[in-house]
Amino acid sequence: MSLIAVGTMAFDAIETPFGKVNQIVGGSATYVAYAASNFVQPIQQVSIVGFDFPQEEMDSLTKRGVQLDGVVVVPDKKSFFWSGRYHMDMNSRDTLVTDLNVLADFDPVLPESYRDAEFVMLGNLHPIIQKKVIEQMKVRPKLIAMDTMNFWMESAMPELEEVLKMVDVLMINDSEARQLSGQFSLVKAAKTIMNMGPKYLIIKKGEHGALLFHEDKVFFAPALPLEDVFDPTGAGDTFAGGFMGHIARTKDISFENMKTAIIVGSAMASYCVEKFGPERLKEITAEDIHTRIEQFVNLVNFDIELV
Amino acid sequence: MSLIAVGTMAFDAIETPFGKVNQIVGGSATYVAYAASNFVQPIQQVSIVGFDFPQEEMDSLTKRGVQLDGVVVVPDKKSFFWSGRYHMDMNSRDTLVTDLNVLADFDPVLPESYRDAEFVMLGNLHPIIQKKVIEQMKVRPKLIAMDTMNFWMESAMPELEEVLKMVDVLMINDSEARQLSGQFSLVKAAKTIMNMGPKYLIIKKGEHGALLFHEDKVFFAPALPLEDVFDPTGAGDTFAGGFMGHIARTKDISFENMKTAIIVGSAMASYCVEKFGPERLKEITAEDIHTRIEQFVNLVNFDIELV
Repeated sequence: MSLIAVGTMAFDAIETPFGKVNQIVGGSATYVAYAASNFVQPIQQVSIVGFDFPQEEMDSLTKRGVQLDGVVVVPDKKSFFWSGRYHMDMNSRDTLVTDLNVLADFDPVLPESYRDAEFVMLGNLHPIIQKKVIEQMKVRPKLIAMDTMNFWMESAMPELEEVLKMVDVLMINDSEARQLSGQFSLVKAAKTIMNMGPKYLIIKKGEHGALLFHEDKVFFAPALPLEDVFDPTGAGDTFAGGFMGHIARTKDISFENMKTAIIVGSAMASYCVEKFGPERLKEITAEDIHTRIEQFVNLVNFDIELV
Repeated sequence: MSLIAVGTMAFDAIETPFGKVNQIVGGSATYVAYAASNFVQPIQQVSIVGFDFPQEEMDSLTKRGVQLDGVVVVPDKKSFFWSGRYHMDMNSRDTLVTDLNVLADFDPVLPESYRDAEFVMLGNLHPIIQKKVIEQMKVRPKLIAMDTMNFWMESAMPELEEVLKMVDVLMINDSEARQLSGQFSLVKAAKTIMNMGPKYLIIKKGEHGALLFHEDKVFFAPALPLEDVFDPTGAGDTFAGGFMGHIARTKDISFENMKTAIIVGSAMASYCVEKFGPERLKEITAEDIHTRIEQFVNLVNFDIELV
């Protein structure tokens, strides 16, 4: 019941209205691993880092059941670096710097021990890379989920269309869903996108929650209203990690169970934003997670007594 | 178990990306009455109109159990007129024209038969008018809810602060909550605003749903994801009407029942936006309302099985 997490492991420099860090560990696969490892182990990590990626971070992941056989360490190059600044509403951000560094050479080869994993989470990467990973699997995994972004829609749409046909779940944000579909209405966007391949579509709306679409069904999970969103970096990947962690743990890929998985993902994301980088994710316990999921139950639970 | 609805009855000219109407009946009290009368009768309407307000509209309201004793008809003036244009996202709009007309003289006197109503909905009006209505009640109603807007925060803040101390429920949108409290975080904004008087605060977020705050509790109701939002005019007042209609019908002002009331209000608002003005609200049946409330149940309902 292992889960493959493909994505970046990186350094971020982040500026929010609440503070600033010049170098903190980040990257999509890092967040996925920290979130998912609460629910399922091993996590089979696929990534690339430079000589500067901290050994203590590797050790911290290993201790959580994250296998690093699929993580290439390039001895003479730096790790991927991203720098961004958030505005007051925290839903918009400016990218200040993107230094690809090792990422320019990323051509993942799955270790033999990964190739029969049942669950795969493809972080936001060039669709050609995402496709290559899928093609290395010995048997079709039970569930393949992927993230992507507007950049690939603009620069690699044919390749993106190809990989979309190969996955089960697409997770994107609302503006990406609108761009990918050419539809403003998210309901119409969902229909268009599901015709492109994925049977399940998750549209992430940041502080406004997330929608899960499947056939003619829709489920909505709110974001937890928080006093402060300290740093939203990685919240989407943490959501993905919680989602796939729950699915891999339960091995149940029904729509009903995906609803629960979205709540689990939302709970994990609500912790992620409380501190810079993945710091908060490293601290929380199983009990913390239970407590927060209970808060979600209370947040949306109501009795209905019809007229 | 009557419900007083105080507010405007007006004409609107509306332009949306989907169409345009030059003159359609609108006004906060109109929408509240059309929504609430599905759940409770009589609705005791308090408003002012000009010579031009259509008799057929009055008849349509009367047939739904809306009492018009409190609606002043001014024979030599025109009804309040508002004109606005919506943008693609439908969450923002430009006001093009505001002709107060009869509204400039609005000084409501409650008919004797209204003065022992148990439930009062104060639409968005000058806070002095809202206060005058409350002062005319013989006994303190079980629940007084009010709407307001940024205009009064800027032009009549002391009067607004006074009336806030007299009501139980305040319903405003997210930007108004931020302006009223001086807090960006809605959780913090809610705490500040509840310290100003209202024990319950509903923050409306349009297509992103609504939050109910009370003491340290919070409840979230999504908006129904719709293929098309045709015209959002009146959605907030329709929400208020559904909310207060449910409360007045059940006579239960507990937090638990307010959750249900918010779902009812959201269901009514989701119908309102399907056509221009209150047109859709005039068509729907009790069965339609049940069906839509069931959709809300399915939209947010999930099973949780903890780790």
